[in-house]
Amino acid sequence: MVQNGHRAMPTREQLHTWRGYIETADVLRSRLGTRMQHESSLSTGDYQVLLALSEAEGRTLRASALALHIGWERSRLSHHLGRMEKRGLIGRATCADDVHGIEVSMTPEGADSFRAGSVPHLRAVKELFLDALSADQLAQVEDLTRTLRTHLDLEPQG
Amino acid sequence: MVQNGHRAMPTREQLHTWRGYIETADVLRSRLGTRMQHESSLSTGDYQVLLALSEAEGRTLRASALALHIGWERSRLSHHLGRMEKRGLIGRATCADDVHGIEVSMTPEGADSFRAGSVPHLRAVKELFLDALSADQLAQVEDLTRTLRTHLDLEPQG
Repeated sequence: MVQNGHRAMPTREQLHTWRGYIETADVLRSRLGTRMQHESSLSTGDYQVLLALSEAEGRTLRASALALHIGWERSRLSHHLGRMEKRGLIGRATCADDVHGIEVSMTPEGADSFRAGSVPHLRAVKELFLDALSADQLAQVEDLTRTLRTHLDLEPQG
Repeated sequence: MVQNGHRAMPTREQLHTWRGYIETADVLRSRLGTRMQHESSLSTGDYQVLLALSEAEGRTLRASALALHIGWERSRLSHHLGRMEKRGLIGRATCADDVHGIEVSMTPEGADSFRAGSVPHLRAVKELFLDALSADQLAQVEDLTRTLRTHLDLEPQG
């Protein structure tokens, strides 16, 4: 790769690749959202939060760790958690060892909704994404993800 | 590929690949958003809308076409356009030939903001995404995008 100095701008081709990548991911999120609205009581945002909590020890994560894990800005997460708390899906509490930290926990009701929403969600992921790609292409996605996550310093935590 | 019937669920490995893909795209959007907040007056959402309009004939698109193009749900787009209109970045008008259609246009002020925001945006795209990947990997991304967009019926329009 030739570097034209650190202020070099992307080429037209590189930008086409970037836009295809990011806009396709946006479309997939949007299509999944439409499907989930019809087929379950959860939005894709609810599902992302509950998925992260379902895998955490004690089904509990700090809000800061949750934001990092799902890649949301803190303000977006905070508003979303407020709505999920009102619906009884999660609870929030101050951390015992840090008054500035907030711990987010999945409630039993949240766990029930998560289980019920998983089947239509996974079916949609299969139909919209996995069914499109061959085993070789899925391996390529896996490699590209690893490269990007290393570049973004996500791999050690993730 | 062996099909286990149309109700078959994804394997654990397939889900790992999917989550890596979609969560990494989310992190990239979020990092770009943080960068743009510091370096320009536009959010990444503003930038997506202005980019689409900048490439449209007469810098104008129907709201329905814009939503499809950038992969947002209509309600999200409508709220976002309301805020951009207040800031003078875009204008909205009823379509001449269809009272149910809304046409969205970039204002001269929107065009100025778009030009000013492009340099930091493109630099961030380069640093966060393009610099991570080799030419071969970028070609893989391009191929995967084409496959996914064909599967999602996006290719003929896009």
